[in-house]
Amino acid sequence: MNVRTPDPNPGWLSDEDLYEARRRLPMVYVEAIPVRCDALGYVDEVGLLLQANEQGEMVRTFVSGRVMYRETIRAALLRHLEKDLGPLALPQLSPSPLPFTIAEYFPSPSETGLTDDRQHAVALAYLIPVTGECNPRQDALELSWMTPAEALSPAIQAEFSGGRADLLRQALAHAGWGR
Amino acid sequence: MNVRTPDPNPGWLSDEDLYEARRRLPMVYVEAIPVRCDALGYVDEVGLLLQANEQGEMVRTFVSGRVMYRETIRAALLRHLEKDLGPLALPQLSPSPLPFTIAEYFPSPSETGLTDDRQHAVALAYLIPVTGECNPRQDALELSWMTPAEALSPAIQAEFSGGRADLLRQALAHAGWGR
Amino acid sequence: MNVRTPDPNPGWLSDEDLYEARRRLPMVYVEAIPVRCDALGYVDEVGLLLQANEQGEMVRTFVSGRVMYRETIRAALLRHLEKDLGPLALPQLSPSPLPFTIAEYFPSPSETGLTDDRQHAVALAYLIPVTGECNPRQDALELSWMTPAEALSPAIQAEFSGGRADLLRQALAHAGWGR
Amino acid sequence: MNVRTPDPNPGWLSDEDLYEARRRLPMVYVEAIPVRCDALGYVDEVGLLLQANEQGEMVRTFVSGRVMYRETIRAALLRHLEKDLGPLALPQLSPSPLPFTIAEYFPSPSETGLTDDRQHAVALAYLIPVTGECNPRQDALELSWMTPAEALSPAIQAEFSGGRADLLRQALAHAGWGR
Repeated sequence: MNVRTPDPNPGWLSDEDLYEARRRLPMVYVEAIPVRCDALGYVDEVGLLLQANEQGEMVRTFVSGRVMYRETIRAALLRHLEKDLGPLALPQLSPSPLPFTIAEYFPSPSETGLTDDRQHAVALAYLIPVTGECNPRQDALELSWMTPAEALSPAIQAEFSGGRADLLRQALAHAGWGR
Repeated sequence: MNVRTPDPNPGWLSDEDLYEARRRLPMVYVEAIPVRCDALGYVDEVGLLLQANEQGEMVRTFVSGRVMYRETIRAALLRHLEKDLGPLALPQLSPSPLPFTIAEYFPSPSETGLTDDRQHAVALAYLIPVTGECNPRQDALELSWMTPAEALSPAIQAEFSGGRADLLRQALAHAGWGR
Repeated sequence: MNVRTPDPNPGWLSDEDLYEARRRLPMVYVEAIPVRCDALGYVDEVGLLLQANEQGEMVRTFVSGRVMYRETIRAALLRHLEKDLGPLALPQLSPSPLPFTIAEYFPSPSETGLTDDRQHAVALAYLIPVTGECNPRQDALELSWMTPAEALSPAIQAEFSGGRADLLRQALAHAGWGR
Repeated sequence: MNVRTPDPNPGWLSDEDLYEARRRLPMVYVEAIPVRCDALGYVDEVGLLLQANEQGEMVRTFVSGRVMYRETIRAALLRHLEKDLGPLALPQLSPSPLPFTIAEYFPSPSETGLTDDRQHAVALAYLIPVTGECNPRQDALELSWMTPAEALSPAIQAEFSGGRADLLRQALAHAGWGR
């Protein structure tokens, strides 16, 4: 029986409700790996974020976040890109809605090799060319641009956690980079 | 602070909780359109379900259902294919995890053209070759096989609801059928 | 026995040799359908060319042309886009090398539904966002921009030949348009 | 004007003509990497060929070959799969015509990283599940099945030439394997 008072923010979850939902339902996420391309479309540089995790360690991450209730995937992508890269990044979303892969994160080890302590997340992972100026707006966030070869070097690969180094390799393979 | 008693079925939602979640969070779905292919991989026939909706009208649908907490997309696909086509259908899941499109259903009209009264659903939509015998197990369900041309005929297209006729056209276009 | 004098233009074929090759070998082509997208990546408009065919009839076509010996697909795409849309079109090639489909044209009817009197062509067909100004440079060429709904209308569809109307439907389906 | 006598084998090229064409035109190729998948579609094993090259060295290769004049890509794929894996391999061609990548081989180094001394080849590269028994019919050919991890090991990677190790990594990334 549902006798709760009308919700002033339908579609908005309290922290506790979100905590509960994360233990019961897969969450829809978008992930974006920003790239700079040359005129022919070849990837010149990959943008990787460096961020402190809950243990205070610096880890490499991608632009990432939840899709809200009644929000389209494209709107969620733009919102998270603007949040993490600033309003002048000028991301070029593809006319195709297809990601380069579907990344499935689980709270414990699984076939997918991707883990997230907090939740089961189904992330649509995109490679997104950006043509403008990127200025991460959050203090705790640093953005580094590097060539595909640098991004795939063991030193950088070791800075990822939760299996995300694999995801970067898949993204670059999707762009024709197998090295 | 979370002082609720331990949940005997973590990952299971009561009907009321699911009803609430559907008004607050996008749900992860899989959809599958079964096809029969010839030896070269060309689509010979498309399998469409006919099912009574809540108003008692017969509507065309696809194999479709929720991805459960801690369930992989591939496991959810097989589970729903077996539920709707029976255990002898022998679906051939592709080595690639990519769907032919991401279908976004909203409870009210949107850019995507797809609607679902109950919820906001993000559905990964796959075209799945099946090689075995299909016997829908649910009484209320009928499966018809038809050629791509028949499936795209105005009469059949009119039997879809919620924008799903578009989705079928996208699926067949993905297989090289534009007609 | 090969006693020809050294070729001053290796990689270049005389008209007669090209005519002969076209009767013996599949030709590699690129095709591009230019689109204008909004900030979210949704297709606003499709650019279609109108051109006189050999019988003097006006037919709808796409940007299209041969891949030359030692030319990359990306270079061929840019070359043909510039030739047909002018040097200020600013096409945005995707980081992924994948086309929306592989179009197989045959000199006589086949499974693919696509025909080309002159040759067997294997065309990699791309949907390409353009952000600049388009000015077809060839006199015999006219470029019209129209919405996806207009482009899929029976009147416009009837202006295509060789099965290309199907290809346009596949391109728009790839961008999430099934209508 | 073309006054040559009618060709008794239109679509067939003499060895000399083929040699000449290979110096003037890109050749259309198909490449296939056979895989064995489990019921969920995850790749269990990859099939790699071992073959003596012109210098008598053993190198790893894929199923590969030319698309003939008037032959569809699907027919060419099946023909080369049968030639290299035998008539009982039972390859499962996907309903989608899209390869996992377009591999561009050039006779000299280029942006693509792929080389082929003999020619400029544009190869549509597919990952193909096979369910039957594979018996390479050509004496000089050996087929080995190995896990994705083995196939990506440095020892096996070193056995490829012409950049094909990259291609294998792209194929496995396409199937969700980034490791």
